[in-house]
Amino acid sequence: MTTLRAERRGDVAVLIPAGGAGVRLGPGGPKALRPLAGEPLLVHAVRRVFAAGDVGWVVVAAPAGAESAVAELLGPLSPEPDRLRVVTGGAQRQHSVAAALAAVPAGPQIILVHDAARALTPPDLVTRVAAAVRDGHRAVIPVLPVVDTVVEVTAAGRVAGNPDRSALRAVQTPQGFARATLEAAHAGAVGDAATDDAGLVSQLGIEVHTVPGSAYAMKITTPYDLTVATALVATAAVPDA
Amino acid sequence: MTTLRAERRGDVAVLIPAGGAGVRLGPGGPKALRPLAGEPLLVHAVRRVFAAGDVGWVVVAAPAGAESAVAELLGPLSPEPDRLRVVTGGAQRQHSVAAALAAVPAGPQIILVHDAARALTPPDLVTRVAAAVRDGHRAVIPVLPVVDTVVEVTAAGRVAGNPDRSALRAVQTPQGFARATLEAAHAGAVGDAATDDAGLVSQLGIEVHTVPGSAYAMKITTPYDLTVATALVATAAVPDA
Repeated sequence: MTTLRAERRGDVAVLIPAGGAGVRLGPGGPKALRPLAGEPLLVHAVRRVFAAGDVGWVVVAAPAGAESAVAELLGPLSPEPDRLRVVTGGAQRQHSVAAALAAVPAGPQIILVHDAARALTPPDLVTRVAAAVRDGHRAVIPVLPVVDTVVEVTAAGRVAGNPDRSALRAVQTPQGFARATLEAAHAGAVGDAATDDAGLVSQLGIEVHTVPGSAYAMKITTPYDLTVATALVATAAVPDA
Repeated sequence: MTTLRAERRGDVAVLIPAGGAGVRLGPGGPKALRPLAGEPLLVHAVRRVFAAGDVGWVVVAAPAGAESAVAELLGPLSPEPDRLRVVTGGAQRQHSVAAALAAVPAGPQIILVHDAARALTPPDLVTRVAAAVRDGHRAVIPVLPVVDTVVEVTAAGRVAGNPDRSALRAVQTPQGFARATLEAAHAGAVGDAATDDAGLVSQLGIEVHTVPGSAYAMKITTPYDLTVATALVATAAVPDA
């Protein structure tokens, strides 16, 4: 642990908006607190984020009323006191990100925005995104090729177009930003709650860079996804846990 | 079994082109013969296809030289003699489909084209696609919503566009066709080996209908996919095996 801390760059803070309801997972509490192999998704996610050597801080935006429970849950994962902060999330994901961003201490200049539903994201991916920001890219997203053929459909469920799959990429998290870039994007974003953070940055005319994502960073959204994630954990198939 | 056979409509034939190399799975034999939980992908796929009550025939296009091995492997899965046919596949997937189509007996008017790499496809999905063709749709594809945000990228890996995900669908198999429609599509398709069968049919100006797909029908393409599929089988999480 001492070696790890000595190597820790500490220039990276990771924001995790964790207020989503997770309706598609069926009835239950906030999505980030749904259990996966006996532990909440958020615990899996935060453990892997801290395992990335260059992450100095994690700021979680918790559902209103759940702040102290979340802080208690995640406290043991923090390598040092005050490396983990919990704030109150907002009604929309974007408001939660803004609240978490406001709670980042003065030091770190690289801000990653992550999703607790991508609970099995390998620490390597966190490091890769942060490294690309450190290399000068102001906005970085991890992406994967789109495996299936993709079609555009009408409201009636008829095929209306065949986009060229070779140019398409599926976007994952964590998404990485130069701190000033993310702050500017959120300052200008009042009212537009539909897009993700890279989308907000795009609207400023800033170029978004891509790095290779990871299949293990898949979003756990449906009961099927939870079945897959559970099976992966049960068979010890997840890297860098 | 008697009850099942009595109910069997027998108006459906399923074609499975099984000649792909599976390069992305790493070194090894033809993709369809790669093992998943101790059995070739093709065995998993064909067992589930025959479990769909309305499938009368399965025609597999095997890699050249592997025809008798494939016939021996799959024979026990056929509910009756001659319900399973094995033909020699071609150099391209499209040629294999055409070869399998030519080997379908005179009866069935609903032709499904499946992919052995979608080895865990639930029988229910096979039935759903066939039923939509029976209801009068000449071309039917199973689709799923696209979960991740999708972007268009440049060759240099920069984000160049944000397609509206809500209109996008990921296309799976089996794809279903009125027999005459698929025959016409393949008759007119010489030389165009890049697209799938629904794409061929689209080129004829025929409307392609969509039905809900299944997460379990995911394509097993990468070592990660094989890990997921293995974990799903190991934890008995696959429906209707």
